[in-house]
Amino acid sequence: MHDRIRHAGLLEKRMSAEAAAALIKPGMTVAMSGFTGAGYPKSVPQALAEQMEKAHAAGTDFQIKILTGASTAPELDGVLAKAGGMELRLPYMSDPLLRKRINDGEIEYMDIHLSHVAQHAWFGFYGDINIAIIEVVGIREDGSLIPSSSVGNNKTWLDMADAVIIEVNKQQSAGLEGMHDVYYGTALPPFRKPIMLNHPEDRIGQPYMDVDLSKVIAVVETDAPDRLSAFAEPDAVSNQIADHLLDFLDGEIKTGRMTDKLLPLQSGVGNIANAVLAGLSRGGYRGLKAYTEVIQDGMLGLIKDGTIAFASATSFSLSEAGIAEFNKHVDFYRERIVLRTQEISNHPELIRRLGCVALNGMIEADIYGNVNSTNVVGSHVMNGIGGSGDFARNGFLSVFMSPSVAKEGRISGIVPFASHVDHTEHDTMLLITEQGYADLRGLSPKQRARLITEKLAHPDYKPMLEDYFERALRDSYGKHTPHLMGEALSWHQRYIETGDMRL
Amino acid sequence: MHDRIRHAGLLEKRMSAEAAAALIKPGMTVAMSGFTGAGYPKSVPQALAEQMEKAHAAGTDFQIKILTGASTAPELDGVLAKAGGMELRLPYMSDPLLRKRINDGEIEYMDIHLSHVAQHAWFGFYGDINIAIIEVVGIREDGSLIPSSSVGNNKTWLDMADAVIIEVNKQQSAGLEGMHDVYYGTALPPFRKPIMLNHPEDRIGQPYMDVDLSKVIAVVETDAPDRLSAFAEPDAVSNQIADHLLDFLDGEIKTGRMTDKLLPLQSGVGNIANAVLAGLSRGGYRGLKAYTEVIQDGMLGLIKDGTIAFASATSFSLSEAGIAEFNKHVDFYRERIVLRTQEISNHPELIRRLGCVALNGMIEADIYGNVNSTNVVGSHVMNGIGGSGDFARNGFLSVFMSPSVAKEGRISGIVPFASHVDHTEHDTMLLITEQGYADLRGLSPKQRARLITEKLAHPDYKPMLEDYFERALRDSYGKHTPHLMGEALSWHQRYIETGDMRL
Ligand SMILES: CC(C)(COP(=O)(O)OP(=O)(O)OC[C@H]1O[C@@H](n2cnc3c(N)ncnc32)[C@H](O)[C@@H]1OP(=O)(O)O)[C@@H](O)C(=O)NCCC(=O)NCCS
Ligand SMILES: CC(C)(COP(=O)(O)OP(=O)(O)OC[C@H]1O[C@@H](n2cnc3c(N)ncnc32)[C@H](O)[C@@H]1OP(=O)(O)O)[C@@H](O)C(=O)NCCC(=O)NCCS
Repeated sequence: MHDRIRHAGLLEKRMSAEAAAALIKPGMTVAMSGFTGAGYPKSVPQALAEQMEKAHAAGTDFQIKILTGASTAPELDGVLAKAGGMELRLPYMSDPLLRKRINDGEIEYMDIHLSHVAQHAWFGFYGDINIAIIEVVGIREDGSLIPSSSVGNNKTWLDMADAVIIEVNKQQSAGLEGMHDVYYGTALPPFRKPIMLNHPEDRIGQPYMDVDLSKVIAVVETDAPDRLSAFAEPDAVSNQIADHLLDFLDGEIKTGRMTDKLLPLQSGVGNIANAVLAGLSRGGYRGLKAYTEVIQDGMLGLIKDGTIAFASATSFSLSEAGIAEFNKHVDFYRERIVLRTQEISNHPELIRRLGCVALNGMIEADIYGNVNSTNVVGSHVMNGIGGSGDFARNGFLSVFMSPSVAKEGRISGIVPFASHVDHTEHDTMLLITEQGYADLRGLSPKQRARLITEKLAHPDYKPMLEDYFERALRDSYGKHTPHLMGEALSWHQRYIETGDMRL
Repeated sequence: MHDRIRHAGLLEKRMSAEAAAALIKPGMTVAMSGFTGAGYPKSVPQALAEQMEKAHAAGTDFQIKILTGASTAPELDGVLAKAGGMELRLPYMSDPLLRKRINDGEIEYMDIHLSHVAQHAWFGFYGDINIAIIEVVGIREDGSLIPSSSVGNNKTWLDMADAVIIEVNKQQSAGLEGMHDVYYGTALPPFRKPIMLNHPEDRIGQPYMDVDLSKVIAVVETDAPDRLSAFAEPDAVSNQIADHLLDFLDGEIKTGRMTDKLLPLQSGVGNIANAVLAGLSRGGYRGLKAYTEVIQDGMLGLIKDGTIAFASATSFSLSEAGIAEFNKHVDFYRERIVLRTQEISNHPELIRRLGCVALNGMIEADIYGNVNSTNVVGSHVMNGIGGSGDFARNGFLSVFMSPSVAKEGRISGIVPFASHVDHTEHDTMLLITEQGYADLRGLSPKQRARLITEKLAHPDYKPMLEDYFERALRDSYGKHTPHLMGEALSWHQRYIETGDMRL
């Protein structure tokens, strides 16, 4: 028997990526695996994109709606965006070409909390799901599926879709088997029950995914790696941000608000989050836990050196070096990592119960602590909100981090008024730039404005922020959250006009 | 024995409101009962305000930090604001004088999700709580307390405070006894456990509140009614809003997304929410359930006529007629209503599990569905976010409602860019004005903008919104969420300058 496809019936459903892609018709809603560049289908989307290009060349419309777990890679989002094959895309993405098309106004993109996607699909908010395309490590004798390097929404897509295409990717480490915990206790309200998970390491599901075999219309074999993006080496700025976080955490331990085991860490995506995690190993912590979405290289390093004893996530997003390290020591990591559905990794019930410390990057914060995670100059989407809102709203602590300036100083990360709000003043507790940290807990808006300006702003922008706030204090319509409506977004407007927020 | 104070030791702690108030010292953090004008202490705060006025007249500073459940009334927020006695106030308020002082920049106010207050206090984010002042219906033989017309954060304040002052209010109906469910299963992370509540009517606690008797420093007898504010009679506009909601709900039932029992309703505060609830009785529903914060007159009417079979809340906010009706049929209502701590009534875990239908008022929404619930012209706070964010983020459906215009048409409720964001585009599903409803589920920002403008805007403003959006589509920096930074807040600026948002 085939060593990755151990079910005779499914073995017979093998076909080429082209043949499988041909089963997808214009107008369909197609749900795919994939979360932060891991575990996404790799050959069917490429074959589909070619068929779309051909259709378009022949003057025929060919677009589909695409749902995933989170971001994928050029072989999925890139090629389908290039082919003009996306009518709607949700929930999170980070592919450069897809991003460009969205920001050119050519693709409709809907940005949803990662904890909401599966339930909204079940609620019927996105209509029928015609086909699911799911990458797996292998198919077992009983037809159950060994999940790949991400779990994401795969359980939901397999359950809900009318038909299923499976990509068996032999480059995914067979060592992943046994690492997953797929929870099958969800229900629709009013039939929901408590989720009995009390610690990041608790297992509440099964290591395999079930699929109704009669729905499987194709099995495709692939042999290709995940995106494996490299991270920027931590630089001076991200090391300073990490140091401020360490300082703050020390203070929390001294006041007794946390023990030196902290509380389960969540760490967002991107260079800053990755560098800050790596910085944590300087803190002298041992035996911490993580309850997070993504395991990046930084987290893997912390597990290796014992800083983190156990990590729960829904996906691996590793560099090539990271994947090599993981594959080499997969038995070590299998004891210390569990991958879950994103419904569980990002679940408000669990994040609140566990009391996560949420560490996320941001694009900008305003002087009152409203945070923009998604839209540069209020309109150009970067990646989407991802799970940052799930953790920031429900965690023990919500931390947002960014360099104080972007684009060689031409953009300030601290602005009078956030040009897009993803996390409101009600949800943000600690902001960090390389300049310092601002602890907003227990502060009113005006107290926040003074602290944020003093501790976080870059020297080029600090006097400008002070000047804005003082004039707002004097002239604002109301003086609870003083603002000058005629000027609040003027920094962004100036950037558009002159390419620089500075006066 | 005294019929409301049945514990001998506490009976001996009786003293005048003046004597009790004299136990409160400048700089203290004082946590008080009270939620939406119900169950707040009535005589100690007034006596305290007098002592503050005297101190201030004598040139001495006298300010305290005040934490409550939610809004109170003139006898608490009003007098203490007038006396200049508040250094910081949180989390929700609606007293006109307090609001004025906050907006004059004289009082620091911090606006927090109602589900967060108790846990943030336990986490130590607000420092020590020196004194709790809690209104109760009575004290039992064993010293346990019969909660009053609201539960709010009382359990937390009683547990956390160094010292406790109890106001026993004999105007509160003795019939309230047995109506409460005070949950004692909370813990700090990492020791938290699932909350085993699966239906609005489940009881998971006890009907009485415990208090460490050695902490009780005063018992004060009062005899005064709750605020008892009258509601505006539903007018044509709010009836139209209610009709649109009924229309929408019919559609949900037809498509099978809900049964005709709907899902547990949450209904916000204010005239619109109250009128819309009253309108629900026209829908022909029977045996619905509510899982909400406040029972206003509208909800009471629905319970009376059988539309709602059971309601879970944390407070009553009734008019004089409402309270009379309640007192007359208290045995009927006791079987159909349970009052819980706000930690439980607003808990993300439970709101998501139950799948609440969240119905809240708003100040304004922008064309992308960002909702402002709190700050008029981005700076003048109305009441605060209350629990609207808890329900909107975690419920099955999040609905926000408002007339399409305010102030005789001089203000549009639909604007290009929300001047303050309390609920982001990621959290809003259905918006309603008297013009119609906009169902935003499954739509991208640009699709939302078109629908919101078409369905919700007042005719005076619709062409202005269309014009803004078309120009933004053409000239925006990015075209995911098209905006003109130089113009996005210009409607609010025009209102400040001319008193009218219209051109
Ligand atoms: C906000 C976010 C984009 C920051 O990413 P990052 O990699 O940590 O931070 P960087 O400073 O390297 O910024 C990434 C890019 O955004 C740009 N950027 C950052 N702030 C900016 C600003 N205020 N204006 C314009 N560009 C900005 C940077 O210049 C950089 O651009 P480049 O790729 O051209 O070099 C990222 O954290 C994110 O996508 N967050 C939202 C999702 C999320 O939090 N998920 C968590 C769990 S899934
Ligand atoms: C938003 C909110 C103030 C609306 O209140 P409401 O009583 O339903 O609605 P109304 O239309 O009667 O508006 C109340 C007042 O706000 C004013 N208002 C409403 N929208 C406005 C706007 N866009 N600009 C200026 N004023 C506005 C109204 O004119 C009215 O003023 P008045 O008291 O001088 O007559 C109210 O729902 C609220 O406080 N919400 C936040 C808290 C919440 O949602 N809690 C829910 C659970 S606790």
